Amino acid sequence: MMDDATLNFPPIEEIEQLVAEGRLTELQAQLERIHPADIALLLDELETETAVTVFELLSIEIASEVLDETGGQIRQELVEKVDDERLADLLDELPMDDAAEFLEDLPDEISDRLIGLMEPEEAAEVQELLAYEEETAGRLMTRDVVALRRQWTISETFDYLRSLEDAETLHYLYVVDRDNKLIGVVPLRTLILSQPDQTIESLMSTDVASVPVTADQEELAEFVTRYDYFVVPVVSPNNELLGVVTVDDVLDIFEEEVTEDIQRLGGSEPLDQPYFAVSVFQIVRKRIGWLLLLFVASTLSGEVIRLFQNELDLVVALGFFITLITGTGGNAGSQTVATIIRAITLDEVRLSNLGAAWWREVSVGLLLGLAMGAVGIVRALLWNTGYEVALVVALTLPIIVIWSTTVATVIPIVADRYRIDPTVISGPMIATIVDATGLLIYFSLAKLILGI
Amino acid sequence: MMDDATLNFPPIEEIEQLVAEGRLTELQAQLERIHPADIALLLDELETETAVTVFELLSIEIASEVLDETGGQIRQELVEKVDDERLADLLDELPMDDAAEFLEDLPDEISDRLIGLMEPEEAAEVQELLAYEEETAGRLMTRDVVALRRQWTISETFDYLRSLEDAETLHYLYVVDRDNKLIGVVPLRTLILSQPDQTIESLMSTDVASVPVTADQEELAEFVTRYDYFVVPVVSPNNELLGVVTVDDVLDIFEEEVTEDIQRLGGSEPLDQPYFAVSVFQIVRKRIGWLLLLFVASTLSGEVIRLFQNELDLVVALGFFITLITGTGGNAGSQTVATIIRAITLDEVRLSNLGAAWWREVSVGLLLGLAMGAVGIVRALLWNTGYEVALVVALTLPIIVIWSTTVATVIPIVADRYRIDPTVISGPMIATIVDATGLLIYFSLAKLILGI
Repeated sequence: MMDDATLNFPPIEEIEQLVAEGRLTELQAQLERIHPADIALLLDELETETAVTVFELLSIEIASEVLDETGGQIRQELVEKVDDERLADLLDELPMDDAAEFLEDLPDEISDRLIGLMEPEEAAEVQELLAYEEETAGRLMTRDVVALRRQWTISETFDYLRSLEDAETLHYLYVVDRDNKLIGVVPLRTLILSQPDQTIESLMSTDVASVPVTADQEELAEFVTRYDYFVVPVVSPNNELLGVVTVDDVLDIFEEEVTEDIQRLGGSEPLDQPYFAVSVFQIVRKRIGWLLLLFVASTLSGEVIRLFQNELDLVVALGFFITLITGTGGNAGSQTVATIIRAITLDEVRLSNLGAAWWREVSVGLLLGLAMGAVGIVRALLWNTGYEVALVVALTLPIIVIWSTTVATVIPIVADRYRIDPTVISGPMIATIVDATGLLIYFSLAKLILGI
Repeated sequence: MMDDATLNFPPIEEIEQLVAEGRLTELQAQLERIHPADIALLLDELETETAVTVFELLSIEIASEVLDETGGQIRQELVEKVDDERLADLLDELPMDDAAEFLEDLPDEISDRLIGLMEPEEAAEVQELLAYEEETAGRLMTRDVVALRRQWTISETFDYLRSLEDAETLHYLYVVDRDNKLIGVVPLRTLILSQPDQTIESLMSTDVASVPVTADQEELAEFVTRYDYFVVPVVSPNNELLGVVTVDDVLDIFEEEVTEDIQRLGGSEPLDQPYFAVSVFQIVRKRIGWLLLLFVASTLSGEVIRLFQNELDLVVALGFFITLITGTGGNAGSQTVATIIRAITLDEVRLSNLGAAWWREVSVGLLLGLAMGAVGIVRALLWNTGYEVALVVALTLPIIVIWSTTVATVIPIVADRYRIDPTVISGPMIATIVDATGLLIYFSLAKLILGI
């Protein structure tokens, strides 16, 4: 969580005053001392007009980085207000994977126009990246990768490195054969620690891990976290070196995937974009499906109440506990589903240990249910419902808690096994599923114990 | 999500057979071809006995990496079954930040015993790290950092680098003064691209970002993601260079923080440890507080039902919709709270734009509520409850959806403003809060419209 104290830029009022008074050279000097990521946050805090003025003051190198770091509303506003020519120049400056990411979020007509204004070479590269499917390694990689040949000596390699104008990453140097096929890797540190006349072949490790260009971004994130890589080479189906994905892109993927998971767990489809960048209608569209489905499903609980209308008429006090029973089942289920889904994502729980996970959750559910049951008895007696109703409530609570934790454990694990993303099983869904069944248990126990 | 197809090790049965038949040299040869992170996953799949046998076959370098990668149950079992002497040797091999992390998860008596068996130098270093508070930069940093002096030439620097036995990271080289105070940084690539007789001072950037040793791990993760750093220097209050935190540790923090957030959103306290490493009683303890609180809160809904007992007696059909009303309010609230909390974490939403966020959510709520209301009318008519009850239901649904989205937007944003972690506001909590108020709205409208 960020709070204002950690924002590394001068107070908003100061910036606004400088703009208002036209002291732009002074402002420019101030801006030079701020990190582009912080300037992006600053723009977000300013009025649109002021933000555009500030943005125009930035040098092209800084402005391109700032543009890359902006998100949501301010990015949209910059795209609208800033000259297309300047935007195209800024995109030319960016690493092409970032430019592609920026362009893909824009409406097609705007992105086509901007690509048309970019330098031909950059435009071609960005179009090539955009041709790969969204959320794949191909889309995320940078093609600025250093490729060495195995017969080079270290001193030839250093000469080559010095001749390069730019390369996003030099941590690992990849070795390719004459067909550009990836055959090895030399960590830069190995290169430094070696003698000038050694060859690349004598230093390189042929055990080089790579991902296919079609790899899904989630696989990619998994791969990087699992092996603690900083850089991953991306290859074609023929093992040709196409580019690299760097760990900072993976951190962004991580944020994206986590955001999707959390939104799904809350019971809506992921938004895919920053909150304020999405229109109200898009948010409605992402939520209405689930909400209607859950709504229709929860009419089942109404059916159950209807079914036991007679019993309710006879023992009115049973009605007082309806929301208590369904609420507790839903809450216990939400707790379980969040824990289990996270454990599945971290690969701690899978079908092979479903039994163990289920047994844990049931034990937990039993203990929680007994505690609830005890409190339930107290509540029932305080409401003067008599001992029999109290007993029904006390028995129903452990059963419903065990039942809802079971549902919340088994469904996501089974979904995962059948390659359905387990996060489609949300807390609200579990709550709705156990509502009707919980009431069925409650009223059946009531019939049995109260003899109605 | 990982599935078996992506596991890079031979089939379990094959490994088990090799162990059973005592073909250990063959097995050892197989293991040499597997990445330590994959061996850790493999151990997790094997029976404990077999896993220990496999683990004993590993060279000390590989075994230490494997140990570092294990989690949950298998780690506990290895600690129990493997000789203390060997464990201490393995810990000596690890980077000390990883050793500290490993030791801090163990019961004190075991970790003290292992530290006692470690090499004195490593033991001292690990104890120093453990003296920093948990979840701070001090605990996560590695002290294997390369520090240069500003008067060195490039060729002197290369000589120095070649003399180093080991350094976890060489991507950035830090420059310190005679008091070990951090004064600059030289990216390794700059070093390579320079002439042998240039000095470090002429190349270094004095604009070096660092974090204090007491910085919280969440700040650290924020810092790294915001500025796309691979490595962050950690300094004492006097700006002395103490160590570096690398981005792979930050990825782990990320996973931890996200896991905590998701568990809180589901309505339980975070587990802090892998799922199977936590005992049933610990899980119960993490959940019971919230569950009891929510339980007691949801007796309020019972009170509301009790309060309107007369009206329920008169119009029994009102009872059929109780779970529908509370369920829909809860579901809409869960959707909102997940989206808003994620937006707060990503710093897209804060108190200054609470109004804008609230207005979006209310607009969304109104549209969703109208759709629900329409479906509600159909449901009411199908249940033959009459037009008046249908009208009550149709009016209640938009109001409760707007109300619950409002609660789910405002509470987390206000909590965040007062530096309370917004994830303490879970979906279940919102559901429980809106249950009672939703019923109050429902029955009040019923009284008004039905004139009862």
